Amino acid sequence: MSDSAQLEKTPFVKEIPPKANDLSEWYQAVCYKAELVSLAPVRGCVVLRPYGYGLWERLQGALDTRFKATGHENAYFPLLIPEHLLTRESEHVEGFAPEVAWVTQGGNEKLAERLAIRPTSEVIVGVMYAEWVHSYRDLPILINQWANVMRWEKRTRPFLRTLEFLWQEGHTAHANETEAREEVARMLEVYREVAEDVAAVPVYTGEKSSSERFAGATHTYSIEALMPDGRALQAATSHELGQNFSKAYDITFAAEDQTVQHAWTTSWGMSWRMLGALIMVHGDDRGLRIPPKMAPTEAVIVPIVRAGSDDVTRAARELHATLRAAGLRVKIDERDLRPGNKFADWEMRGVPIRIELGQKDLEAGTATLVRRDKEKGEDGGKLAVPIAEVATRIPPLLDDIQANLLAQARTFLAAHTLRETGRDAFLRRCKERDGMIDIAWCGLPACEADVKAQTSATTRNTRALDAAGPCVACGEPATVRAYFAQSY
Amino acid sequence: MSDSAQLEKTPFVKEIPPKANDLSEWYQAVCYKAELVSLAPVRGCVVLRPYGYGLWERLQGALDTRFKATGHENAYFPLLIPEHLLTRESEHVEGFAPEVAWVTQGGNEKLAERLAIRPTSEVIVGVMYAEWVHSYRDLPILINQWANVMRWEKRTRPFLRTLEFLWQEGHTAHANETEAREEVARMLEVYREVAEDVAAVPVYTGEKSSSERFAGATHTYSIEALMPDGRALQAATSHELGQNFSKAYDITFAAEDQTVQHAWTTSWGMSWRMLGALIMVHGDDRGLRIPPKMAPTEAVIVPIVRAGSDDVTRAARELHATLRAAGLRVKIDERDLRPGNKFADWEMRGVPIRIELGQKDLEAGTATLVRRDKEKGEDGGKLAVPIAEVATRIPPLLDDIQANLLAQARTFLAAHTLRETGRDAFLRRCKERDGMIDIAWCGLPACEADVKAQTSATTRNTRALDAAGPCVACGEPATVRAYFAQSY
Repeated sequence: MSDSAQLEKTPFVKEIPPKANDLSEWYQAVCYKAELVSLAPVRGCVVLRPYGYGLWERLQGALDTRFKATGHENAYFPLLIPEHLLTRESEHVEGFAPEVAWVTQGGNEKLAERLAIRPTSEVIVGVMYAEWVHSYRDLPILINQWANVMRWEKRTRPFLRTLEFLWQEGHTAHANETEAREEVARMLEVYREVAEDVAAVPVYTGEKSSSERFAGATHTYSIEALMPDGRALQAATSHELGQNFSKAYDITFAAEDQTVQHAWTTSWGMSWRMLGALIMVHGDDRGLRIPPKMAPTEAVIVPIVRAGSDDVTRAARELHATLRAAGLRVKIDERDLRPGNKFADWEMRGVPIRIELGQKDLEAGTATLVRRDKEKGEDGGKLAVPIAEVATRIPPLLDDIQANLLAQARTFLAAHTLRETGRDAFLRRCKERDGMIDIAWCGLPACEADVKAQTSATTRNTRALDAAGPCVACGEPATVRAYFAQSY
Repeated sequence: MSDSAQLEKTPFVKEIPPKANDLSEWYQAVCYKAELVSLAPVRGCVVLRPYGYGLWERLQGALDTRFKATGHENAYFPLLIPEHLLTRESEHVEGFAPEVAWVTQGGNEKLAERLAIRPTSEVIVGVMYAEWVHSYRDLPILINQWANVMRWEKRTRPFLRTLEFLWQEGHTAHANETEAREEVARMLEVYREVAEDVAAVPVYTGEKSSSERFAGATHTYSIEALMPDGRALQAATSHELGQNFSKAYDITFAAEDQTVQHAWTTSWGMSWRMLGALIMVHGDDRGLRIPPKMAPTEAVIVPIVRAGSDDVTRAARELHATLRAAGLRVKIDERDLRPGNKFADWEMRGVPIRIELGQKDLEAGTATLVRRDKEKGEDGGKLAVPIAEVATRIPPLLDDIQANLLAQARTFLAAHTLRETGRDAFLRRCKERDGMIDIAWCGLPACEADVKAQTSATTRNTRALDAAGPCVACGEPATVRAYFAQSY
């Protein structure tokens, strides 16, 4: 049977189920209903539809601006990696080989050597850096790449895990370990900032345990978000690669003292997975709630037009033009549909502000602004604003919505971050997906493996210990504090 | 022998050869020396280095803005296309199958069906549009995709032809032929505008002959530029696909009159090949000359610092800050190198304006502005400008450089566009690569094939006939005017 014969078509979603019932079912329904993605006719791949791509463009913009402000430039490396190169860094290949898609035929000829579709680009970047770097004057190299990558996964889910995905991967080379370490910390901070200040998704930053480290890295750091079902989601990683890749790929340079040395390299990445976090964290039973800074459309004008109410149409179009001229990302919905259907549509898409304009509003000289972040009937959710003031009232309102979504998510995270000192309660909470379970931990792989076997939870990331004591999981001396959770 | 064993490394270029001697040799030397690309360790692929990517980002920006202004949205479709889908539109598959790279293995499993790496995306887009389109209300769909694609070519050259390349591909679906036709014309005009007004590369727009048509299209239109060696370069295409793809992939909709109809689709693309045209058209013996609108760096400040001249450094940095604050893309070169080496470096990279600032300039209160578009010693090539006026003098100077590069290229194109009425002269000019040879043409494939066999020249594109008469190539009645040329 062919792979494609087993393919599902994108399910038709009439109504999304309540979020609290089954997060996974709600999540997939929202992804299709809000037209973020469709299932593609290739196993485990999705099509990013225009509205989903709009979110991705906002995320790209937020990251790209910050990468450039921190001295990075973009470049593009090939999609295909010859097998003999992939296998040079042994830990790396061991980690990635099981997930690689292989090209074996080009046109009508069978290739003498298999070519891997990049699962990540450390290998090909390493080969090129070896060619480009000769002297300490050539360092640092600070490059980012926007690219598609592929990992042959078994189970897939829109944004969270797909065979092909879009991401950025930074690759840098430095003359010494200190600079490489600073770079890794700097980019982790960029990720934290984008997650919290742009996507309004609060995260914990810290170092991954040795068993969760990137294949070939000496240290991996991550940002970890908490989903409404109590499972953690790793939203970005930043790796110190030490001299592992520079030794495997021969990235050497003449230092100031004329000695030949191996460069210190780093890599760091965030993918469209971040969009999955945003959807799950903020969405509700009416659909998406997009933080304004991520919103392709900040506000939508819905004229409520009765037969013969040309005035309303004219006023709505004028308002549209005014708001656009003020630099706002605004749409006007003049489709031949009932207002209620339009409201539901834009709520599903999570547009932060709806602007209703009907005959009554017009007579009163006002428009009705409805905030997507508030419940129906909630205080401050609906505002009558003089039409002439709408353009100036919207920006602070968007700021307030942005802040409110972050505050709501922070409240949830705080309520579900549980500091445990007893082993039984710790294991039970892990098993019950009670959130980020924060313990003093020994740092030993065997302990982590034991917890995982018993509860399915793993360490998300670790930070410095605040007080000496035993590991809550196994009783050995603790060396770090760690968040444990089940994860995506 | 493995494919990779035959791979060249990026050649080290000490000096670029004169452009007039051997365009191809000059071209490749410039591409490497200006650090636009490196050869990758995969046959026929290049790495787009930061400076080359900077050019690509400018081109992307120019196109993306115009796509959005004409109502298009971006989306992303999968890289892989199952073989059974690729083969449904028979002309299309015939055109592309010989150039397809095939994935046959995913992780450790052999795939039941081969997956093609997209050579272009009409197929997968067609499958999705069939899923998304139900009613005339769903039309038009106006989508663009920024993507990497792959064509298994034999001979390759940076930007002009590589196995993998970056491009954009627009894909639209319409309710009727008129709209589809308007769309194709609109996007051809966008390409013309970007080529001429942004890249300063003059082009001829017109329709491709039937033998040069895109596989599966009913009409293909192109923009064609002329290179300094008299060969034409197709820089973008815009295709009417008629109902061919909508029939093969079942894109049907309920029309206003309730009948079920097939949509009319289009596609259109421009790739990083446009950068190859820009390099060849504008470059000279000192390297690149980048039109200001395409320049990642519009001006570079070179402080000419002698021991102890802190004043110059301070003034140069102040000027740098002032120009950046004025919104200019400006760099300051404080490397520990001789000024002459820096000048050569930035000339090689084609930065439009060099700003020299030395002790003497400082004492005179001026900076020296050097235009990259002028010959050394040419009138107006060097200007002493009061430091306080540099920020306001640069924008009009950039406009003038942009206009001058376009004017120079237009002069060349006009001088090498030759209207021929005699068969012998026509064939000789074609053979000698005298440029765009403009004739009244019959439009018959056999005639075109005959000219090609005798001269290697083909039709580039065609336009309406201005006067009845015989085909210059074969004597049959002419039906169009056509540009013939040898091409890249």
